[in-house]
Amino acid sequence: MTSTKTTEFSFKVSATDAAARTGMIRTPRGDIRTPAFMPVGTAATVKAMLPEHVKATGADIILGNTYHLMLRPTAERIAKFGGLHKFMRWDGPILTDSGGFQVMSLAQLRKMTEEGVTFQSHIDGSSHFLTPKRSIEIQCMLGSDIQMQLDECPPFPITEETAESSMELSLRWARRSKQAFIDRANPGQALFGIVQGSTFEDLRRRSLDGLAEMDFHGYSIGGLAVGEGQEEMFRVLDFLTPHMPPDNPRYLMGVGKPSDLVGAVARGVDMFDCVLPTRSGRHGQAWTKYGPINIKNAKFVEDESPLDPGSDCPASANYSKAYLNHLFKAGEYLGPMLLTWHNLHYYQQLMDEMREAIAEGQFDTFQQAFHEAQTTRKG
Amino acid sequence: MTSTKTTEFSFKVSATDAAARTGMIRTPRGDIRTPAFMPVGTAATVKAMLPEHVKATGADIILGNTYHLMLRPTAERIAKFGGLHKFMRWDGPILTDSGGFQVMSLAQLRKMTEEGVTFQSHIDGSSHFLTPKRSIEIQCMLGSDIQMQLDECPPFPITEETAESSMELSLRWARRSKQAFIDRANPGQALFGIVQGSTFEDLRRRSLDGLAEMDFHGYSIGGLAVGEGQEEMFRVLDFLTPHMPPDNPRYLMGVGKPSDLVGAVARGVDMFDCVLPTRSGRHGQAWTKYGPINIKNAKFVEDESPLDPGSDCPASANYSKAYLNHLFKAGEYLGPMLLTWHNLHYYQQLMDEMREAIAEGQFDTFQQAFHEAQTTRKG
Repeated sequence: MTSTKTTEFSFKVSATDAAARTGMIRTPRGDIRTPAFMPVGTAATVKAMLPEHVKATGADIILGNTYHLMLRPTAERIAKFGGLHKFMRWDGPILTDSGGFQVMSLAQLRKMTEEGVTFQSHIDGSSHFLTPKRSIEIQCMLGSDIQMQLDECPPFPITEETAESSMELSLRWARRSKQAFIDRANPGQALFGIVQGSTFEDLRRRSLDGLAEMDFHGYSIGGLAVGEGQEEMFRVLDFLTPHMPPDNPRYLMGVGKPSDLVGAVARGVDMFDCVLPTRSGRHGQAWTKYGPINIKNAKFVEDESPLDPGSDCPASANYSKAYLNHLFKAGEYLGPMLLTWHNLHYYQQLMDEMREAIAEGQFDTFQQAFHEAQTTRKG
Repeated sequence: MTSTKTTEFSFKVSATDAAARTGMIRTPRGDIRTPAFMPVGTAATVKAMLPEHVKATGADIILGNTYHLMLRPTAERIAKFGGLHKFMRWDGPILTDSGGFQVMSLAQLRKMTEEGVTFQSHIDGSSHFLTPKRSIEIQCMLGSDIQMQLDECPPFPITEETAESSMELSLRWARRSKQAFIDRANPGQALFGIVQGSTFEDLRRRSLDGLAEMDFHGYSIGGLAVGEGQEEMFRVLDFLTPHMPPDNPRYLMGVGKPSDLVGAVARGVDMFDCVLPTRSGRHGQAWTKYGPINIKNAKFVEDESPLDPGSDCPASANYSKAYLNHLFKAGEYLGPMLLTWHNLHYYQQLMDEMREAIAEGQFDTFQQAFHEAQTTRKG
């Protein structure tokens, strides 16, 4: 892939196949092939991975978590170090979330007002006040390339009435986030609005229309993968994505399993992030084209075959399942290191295959082969 | 360094400087530059390291622990997989201990007889019987290149009487180990005898003489680094090494700190192993030419300098102390991964400098510079 330097954020769809699309996001820090999967680097590290190995799996972009970084080592300190890229030695694009989701799931003693959310750090109990403006300030101090508006992430299930008032608060926060971004961001940085509204079609459409009117660089789909199940998630995408601006990237936040990614790409989604490949890798679960396997299972004790003999990823091709099984049984660091590496490579390979299938107009065929292989369970 | 394949184990001293010596051990699996430091790969992995990175630090040989491997995944299973080298993907030489030391320090319900030692696994409580012959059988199943006789590792301090009877048992086991090795080992494999006798000169000399008469490929010095202190350890080396066979490698087991290595090399030792660089790396201690530092110390929170800016080791040169401090505070895998890597590289660099200083007849100057830098504590 040839590429020249760009000074602006841009997105171009190069091919579509039914609702699925493939293309390229361009940023001053590098190009992002879509559909893209972003490994999660919560605390300025993709857990158990060297940054050069993350790159080698094929990841064009990673995600950092504003909530974790604002608490430790703090955004001010990272800014002093010259930004998150330099601090963690990742020179490609970085997307940061707004911190809102983790405030809801991790922080203590939250208090939500029209202005923002007050919370206590889960690390040291210190008190913090996160507003749309403050979230953008932090993301700018981190120096992230793609930033998220602060939104409220409501629980699931939720009544339509509560979902509506939450969605409307997120819309008002979107406007304030946008203003803060205009005041503060550097050229080439991008800001995404986040579509909320739970599983209610009318609310989702109103959220989307409100955001589209404000004109963001991209549109995230928040509030899914929170327990509603794959079928319901796909139903929301079915009624939502056809109305999303065609010329902006669509980012389904916090998703997901390989079959989630395939189904969402089929419905027109361009970007994903999820802790699943890294987290499950640390716990002994390997994702393969034949479905997930638990490497700690006794049936692998004497299995001399690697996870994927044909792979160009050392973690997938060079070590036997018996060895990986041994490493996990012995509680050795190398087990999580190798399985995380393998999983991230598998995810990137999956994205690559999807991009190619869309470009060739063969996405239906790809999907069929994907699902057939997944149920074969050769692992 | 050019090298050709060898089918035999050999050792040649190429230069001496007072008692210090540099040279080369040759094995069918590769050459080992001496003085050599062997990283410890207890359970078929040098903890938190990829094997290719162990190699890249400059390690010519690693150590595997017979006790751990015989219990999990078992020597029989490793033999079935084609040996330890293939199992853990390390194609250089491997030295294995006899299992005796870990039986004493880790196993439960030990019972020692003339025949051997019965013990219960610390992993699952299963019962095992380790004899000189069985230890060699296991080491041969693992396929290790340099093997150790089974010995008894007495505690410290110990009476001269107890030390004597223990040393004599180890001598009788040396003979049985040698016979088992002759019966079973492949050409090119080597067996070392282990000098015991605690800190008693007469016992050490009798142990050495008894072993030398049996003619081993090399001679290990056991029963040191068990709490006697550096001064006492050096005193033992001072009276022992001048009498050791000049044409065989001398291996000081389980040692040590950088200053231990320098002092022992000055006294004619050729080989070392120790968990210190790997274990302390996992706990936030970095070894540098200016002495050890605790990376978790608050003074590194904003220290943007790397551990060793001029190093060719990525872990030493590319990451700031502030970043390493952050990783350890956040409990991230990458902290132990990077610090282990750095420490192993520092140790290998130290061995390299010693080999060069001896070859140039400058070992005194080297020692002086080493001790001056260590007390500077720039870190």
